[in-house]
Amino acid sequence: MKTRRDESGVGPWDVAVLAATIFVAIAMPLRVVFDSLDVGWMTVGSTVAALLFGADVVMRFSRPIVVGGRPVSEPSVVRRHYLRTWFLVDLMAAIPFDVIAAASGLAEGSAGQALRLLSLLRVLRVARILILQREWRVRTSFNPALLRLAFFFFWIVVSSHWIACGWIALDGLEAGHAELHPYQQALYWTITTLTTVGYGDIAPVGGRQVAYAMVVMGLGVAMFGYIIGNVASLLANIDVLRARHLGRIETINHFLRDRHVPHELQTRVRDYYNYLWESRMGSQSEMLMDLPRSLHIEVALHLHRNVLRKVPIFERASEVFLRELVLHLVPQVFIPGETIVRRGEIGHRIFFINKGTVEVLSHDEGTVVATLSDGDFFGEWALLSSQPRANTVVAVDYCNLYALDRDKFDQVLDGFPEFATEVRRVADARRQDTASET
Amino acid sequence: MKTRRDESGVGPWDVAVLAATIFVAIAMPLRVVFDSLDVGWMTVGSTVAALLFGADVVMRFSRPIVVGGRPVSEPSVVRRHYLRTWFLVDLMAAIPFDVIAAASGLAEGSAGQALRLLSLLRVLRVARILILQREWRVRTSFNPALLRLAFFFFWIVVSSHWIACGWIALDGLEAGHAELHPYQQALYWTITTLTTVGYGDIAPVGGRQVAYAMVVMGLGVAMFGYIIGNVASLLANIDVLRARHLGRIETINHFLRDRHVPHELQTRVRDYYNYLWESRMGSQSEMLMDLPRSLHIEVALHLHRNVLRKVPIFERASEVFLRELVLHLVPQVFIPGETIVRRGEIGHRIFFINKGTVEVLSHDEGTVVATLSDGDFFGEWALLSSQPRANTVVAVDYCNLYALDRDKFDQVLDGFPEFATEVRRVADARRQDTASET
Amino acid sequence: MKTRRDESGVGPWDVAVLAATIFVAIAMPLRVVFDSLDVGWMTVGSTVAALLFGADVVMRFSRPIVVGGRPVSEPSVVRRHYLRTWFLVDLMAAIPFDVIAAASGLAEGSAGQALRLLSLLRVLRVARILILQREWRVRTSFNPALLRLAFFFFWIVVSSHWIACGWIALDGLEAGHAELHPYQQALYWTITTLTTVGYGDIAPVGGRQVAYAMVVMGLGVAMFGYIIGNVASLLANIDVLRARHLGRIETINHFLRDRHVPHELQTRVRDYYNYLWESRMGSQSEMLMDLPRSLHIEVALHLHRNVLRKVPIFERASEVFLRELVLHLVPQVFIPGETIVRRGEIGHRIFFINKGTVEVLSHDEGTVVATLSDGDFFGEWALLSSQPRANTVVAVDYCNLYALDRDKFDQVLDGFPEFATEVRRVADARRQDTASET
Amino acid sequence: MKTRRDESGVGPWDVAVLAATIFVAIAMPLRVVFDSLDVGWMTVGSTVAALLFGADVVMRFSRPIVVGGRPVSEPSVVRRHYLRTWFLVDLMAAIPFDVIAAASGLAEGSAGQALRLLSLLRVLRVARILILQREWRVRTSFNPALLRLAFFFFWIVVSSHWIACGWIALDGLEAGHAELHPYQQALYWTITTLTTVGYGDIAPVGGRQVAYAMVVMGLGVAMFGYIIGNVASLLANIDVLRARHLGRIETINHFLRDRHVPHELQTRVRDYYNYLWESRMGSQSEMLMDLPRSLHIEVALHLHRNVLRKVPIFERASEVFLRELVLHLVPQVFIPGETIVRRGEIGHRIFFINKGTVEVLSHDEGTVVATLSDGDFFGEWALLSSQPRANTVVAVDYCNLYALDRDKFDQVLDGFPEFATEVRRVADARRQDTASET
Repeated sequence: MKTRRDESGVGPWDVAVLAATIFVAIAMPLRVVFDSLDVGWMTVGSTVAALLFGADVVMRFSRPIVVGGRPVSEPSVVRRHYLRTWFLVDLMAAIPFDVIAAASGLAEGSAGQALRLLSLLRVLRVARILILQREWRVRTSFNPALLRLAFFFFWIVVSSHWIACGWIALDGLEAGHAELHPYQQALYWTITTLTTVGYGDIAPVGGRQVAYAMVVMGLGVAMFGYIIGNVASLLANIDVLRARHLGRIETINHFLRDRHVPHELQTRVRDYYNYLWESRMGSQSEMLMDLPRSLHIEVALHLHRNVLRKVPIFERASEVFLRELVLHLVPQVFIPGETIVRRGEIGHRIFFINKGTVEVLSHDEGTVVATLSDGDFFGEWALLSSQPRANTVVAVDYCNLYALDRDKFDQVLDGFPEFATEVRRVADARRQDTASET
Repeated sequence: MKTRRDESGVGPWDVAVLAATIFVAIAMPLRVVFDSLDVGWMTVGSTVAALLFGADVVMRFSRPIVVGGRPVSEPSVVRRHYLRTWFLVDLMAAIPFDVIAAASGLAEGSAGQALRLLSLLRVLRVARILILQREWRVRTSFNPALLRLAFFFFWIVVSSHWIACGWIALDGLEAGHAELHPYQQALYWTITTLTTVGYGDIAPVGGRQVAYAMVVMGLGVAMFGYIIGNVASLLANIDVLRARHLGRIETINHFLRDRHVPHELQTRVRDYYNYLWESRMGSQSEMLMDLPRSLHIEVALHLHRNVLRKVPIFERASEVFLRELVLHLVPQVFIPGETIVRRGEIGHRIFFINKGTVEVLSHDEGTVVATLSDGDFFGEWALLSSQPRANTVVAVDYCNLYALDRDKFDQVLDGFPEFATEVRRVADARRQDTASET
Repeated sequence: MKTRRDESGVGPWDVAVLAATIFVAIAMPLRVVFDSLDVGWMTVGSTVAALLFGADVVMRFSRPIVVGGRPVSEPSVVRRHYLRTWFLVDLMAAIPFDVIAAASGLAEGSAGQALRLLSLLRVLRVARILILQREWRVRTSFNPALLRLAFFFFWIVVSSHWIACGWIALDGLEAGHAELHPYQQALYWTITTLTTVGYGDIAPVGGRQVAYAMVVMGLGVAMFGYIIGNVASLLANIDVLRARHLGRIETINHFLRDRHVPHELQTRVRDYYNYLWESRMGSQSEMLMDLPRSLHIEVALHLHRNVLRKVPIFERASEVFLRELVLHLVPQVFIPGETIVRRGEIGHRIFFINKGTVEVLSHDEGTVVATLSDGDFFGEWALLSSQPRANTVVAVDYCNLYALDRDKFDQVLDGFPEFATEVRRVADARRQDTASET
Repeated sequence: MKTRRDESGVGPWDVAVLAATIFVAIAMPLRVVFDSLDVGWMTVGSTVAALLFGADVVMRFSRPIVVGGRPVSEPSVVRRHYLRTWFLVDLMAAIPFDVIAAASGLAEGSAGQALRLLSLLRVLRVARILILQREWRVRTSFNPALLRLAFFFFWIVVSSHWIACGWIALDGLEAGHAELHPYQQALYWTITTLTTVGYGDIAPVGGRQVAYAMVVMGLGVAMFGYIIGNVASLLANIDVLRARHLGRIETINHFLRDRHVPHELQTRVRDYYNYLWESRMGSQSEMLMDLPRSLHIEVALHLHRNVLRKVPIFERASEVFLRELVLHLVPQVFIPGETIVRRGEIGHRIFFINKGTVEVLSHDEGTVVATLSDGDFFGEWALLSSQPRANTVVAVDYCNLYALDRDKFDQVLDGFPEFATEVRRVADARRQDTASET
């Protein structure tokens, strides 16, 4: 398992390489277009990045990888895999063309110019960030919509930067706005064009600029449109569960208004759904259905930890008992005034109260013989005695109950005698207390 | 329940605070950029708003809140919750920096300028409107699509206003259109830019303006694109049930045309779906399935109130009887000429006519022995006598019927003897009338 | 039924009113902005339109309407309904303000101007076209996507025209392009702005124009964006069934490529789906499931008319027989070489060949004892004799068969003795022919 | 089958015609607007294209077609079909108007001009590419999203080219940018307009240009918007299965974070889904459900070829045996530590290990009595002896198993005695080895 998470690139080494990659993506194009940037710290940064990239190439030859979902650390497989995939790109990015140029005294002249352009190859490493982006989406628990928004923002900034550097390289600066720094001017043109605002105060002049502008408009505008289109759906998905809740309420709202259901009843229906949402009792099981049983149990243990902690007869229960029980507990919500159990019906389940208050009514349903609340259970008598429900039970406020079906209840009674004893003890005490109840 | 609805912010106090918030959002930025607006009514308005906000902060400390779907009014919980969430924002918005400036005679000079800028903090309260927006979506029965359109419009107007004020603050007014008021000019530039029209008659000059324009283009255009994208889907959802009906008809239309079904038959299929839609008899049950039983019954009582009012034997029925019955009534639509019940078949249900006319045919199906209409029922004989259907029944026009299955019918007969007597009385009368029918 | 279709507005009267409405929508604004258009034919057209609209108001008071899916012709209901809905709009549009102006000699002066502006109210009738649009979508069998595209085109043209007229009214014509006709110039500005191209060669001058331009940009751009967004999905839906077929093939293609399924097998899977689509044998039943039984039968009779015509033993069958049979015929497609029936299996159905050729193999599956083709049936022996399948049957090419289940087959044999006789005759002949088969 | 694939247009003849079509689409409009292009190679190319198109018309009369999914080569049907569909377009494109003009000496003068314009009809052939596009989508295994992107790119390039040529024809070149080649200038205007950037440095002058610009803006902008809209969804679909996997993980991520599930557990849930995806064990069956049985078997044989190759007792199995078995093998994934079989349970299936390691525990679950790995099977004893599971089996790492249900297992044992013998032999050996196991 460890190798898998290491692989997602959050070790200190990966952070260093990532930082170098971003530095290279920003600084190298600037250095090519502005001679004045050929200064000390820039050379140092560039050289350090090249060294880091070189060391990374070496390391990759022995770093375990994941193939078909399984970690592989056999050197021959790792090597072959690396040579077939990223080796060439990584190698290109690691050759320090600029250092070579400086060392060989070729900084001036056309050979130096060529070497400087070749040093742009280092920018290729940026493609690695696409891989990182994908890894983070499936391996981390960041909000995926926010994560993608952040990456979109990064790509827009980086590509605007590159387009602006390209514009400077084509001497696109004579036109207007002489008061601005060349870079600011180029970036301004880039954004004006990519967003299709196109004031026209800076327009391309001459064949090369016009050709460049056409490419930027064609591809850049498509890219910008694509990102805007995605931003809309990402913003809608930042809280995708709430969005679903809202969508559900809106649909039911439309329906109720269309059928002229009275406002008071509409409000109660809405309140019910809001309660489901706010108390996190809405249906969740379909999400977990395709998990393997052992994972399903662990997630369910967490989701239902409240009821398991609150109900006294569960408190002393063993881990094994709870794991057996938890998949069979069915969360249910009752609204104030709703009848949960009706006297005379055949009882099919026992209820555990997670939150809320219920009233047990007397036989003639005239008086309240008991009030049960968080951590209590009821409905056990009908299951133990196989007789019809003795009392009606009504919810006083919103009630989060957990129901356990008769057959599961019987299984649990069989498998865990101490639980059976406890339930029978409570049931007997109740019957003696109130003559005949629940 | 009351606290829940109060919480949605429709008390008079909330309206006053909301009005102050909107006033502040519009007026404060204007006051900062236009010295001439530093006049009496503006100072009064600003001070009143500050006072209201201050009072609101105090009130929030003791106002019941909703946590996990349940109202909480315990002061310590409320206080802690408020301090952890909105307290800081609300406090910032409540400090009357401008009043302090005026009172301390600092209105002029850099300190006064700073205080004036600080008074912009009051605009932070606008974030509250986002909360309000979300509350209204889940707690009110306004058309949710229209509600969101209105809020989108509000946010576009407010943010355009702010962007225009920012442009004025950067002295973006020399450029052109000298004949216009500075505010009009700035708003014109804002809208030209946000909509990406970009005529170019007003373009940024100087580094600060260019930087501002870049940010406005980058974020503003994304925002505008996002809103346009949403408007399209919101307009499509203003009447989402009708939109579904249209979509369904269009799909079936495509299918019928693809298979070259004759026009006359296509028209009849379309008419059927249109009738379903216009008479509101289309399937609805799946929407209500996940409601708790008691709410489901109340909604069903409303939806089927027509048939319950019209059918004479239901009129005198008790509330309990109707609640028992209503979930079992299955609405059905028959097209003109369709056979509802066929002589000789085993009868599985009884039908109540909500709207429309049916004809009971004689044994040889040659003549009409009875015509039944709104409020009548038929098909009871086969259920009471357990013999095959005695007569064929045919729909004359579009018929909205409610069917009740045999087992539910038997349950109801058992539980409500007076209903059983009434049904048997009608059935006997009919058999004597027409010798042998239905 | 007649009233329903009349109501969709395709009588000659409706066509005349519609033509007048479009004329008014185009001509009235032009007449207001161009004095030179105040000529004879324009006055005549305008007057005729006013008369038509007036007559239409009168007619509507007695024209049957549809309420809740049922035609209503009771005068009091119709009258009340009309007064509550469109009466006011229709009335406004019917008052001939321009005729009044001309008649009262007020054509000049401010009163005349006011009356001329009031005559623009006639344009309100255009809102009726929205109703028409909705009616056509649900009542006609035009391709719904094309219909909506046409209406979108209409609304874009009409609203561009109005915006251009408004621009002329604000004297927006001095700016540039003096060589153009004023209307052309205004329309050019309108389209440049709505599409957000915004060259800037015509830009608003002065407060009124700037305000107008802001409104056009704000609302117009939103409208344009909305329509573009819809056009994309409409174009995708012009042939929605084919689009679904394509989508299905693309999904399966992705899956097969992802799992490296051999190309030859991929091709066969694709060919199968293409055959399903091209032969219109793809699943269709789910679309018809919610039709009432009588409509379902009629559509099925049409869809399966080929097999009903081709199979000789159906040819002489009565209408009643076919209606009974048609819902039970299950269309099935077999690919070349597939085994349809295997010797020794229990037979559950009989097959009718709609298209294609099958081979009946001898007992040792070594030779072909019979070749059956369009209109033949097979598999009857196992059903009649209740013995296992005697012969294996293999599809030679793509085969469209209709299967009839044993229990439905038995029902049909019982109900239609002449059909039973015929089937038995063929079966006996076959057994004697080939000693023992099928 | 051959005719179907030929029909998709990949024979050498089709390639030649396609190349000629593209040449014509690019070259003919250029030739009309630039007199200087009326040179030798252009005339030759044009004439060759005309000849190719002419030959194609002749060939189509006898080329087999596909109607309703079946190849048809009957000449009369083919001829009628061709005459009714593409004949006219193909004929127009095949008449060599330009050759006629040159031959008749009409190259100059208005008649020559007319003939030259008529030669543009040859461009109509481009419509054929739309057909080709559709064919490729359903008949080839290219990535459908990439294919559509490529076609979109082609159409954007071609239509930009045409629009630019039209602009040249209207003498739109005086305006600015005199330093550029006319074609470059026109293309620059086209792209500036279509992308709605609209710098305004080239704007239409005069009525004809303005009208042309309006049409380009209206239709062109809609087209561009449509394509951008589609590009977004196509990019999302280039790897549609991975996109689904990401979507699924993101939804479960949202849910787990919302319920505050511990990070460690979240990671395990994510790892499980990632393993499912990377090992290609995710559910696939629903995709294949509607394939005919024989195709389904072949695809399943391929999908499960790993287990069929690895498990020794399958290796020597006959083709018939594997085809019988393969539809019943159910792939299952177990996570490390999960219990696959529990001692004392009733055994319902036998498991074959595709990948991974399992441990068979002793009766007291204290020690490991056997470790099984790729190609082994277990769980056979409970099925053979009809006794409860004798040993608990636990997954050591991620395990891909194939389960076979008891009834299918029994069927297979009955039908393939050599398989039964082999399984029994292994089972007996095991029981003697370890006294009593599995």
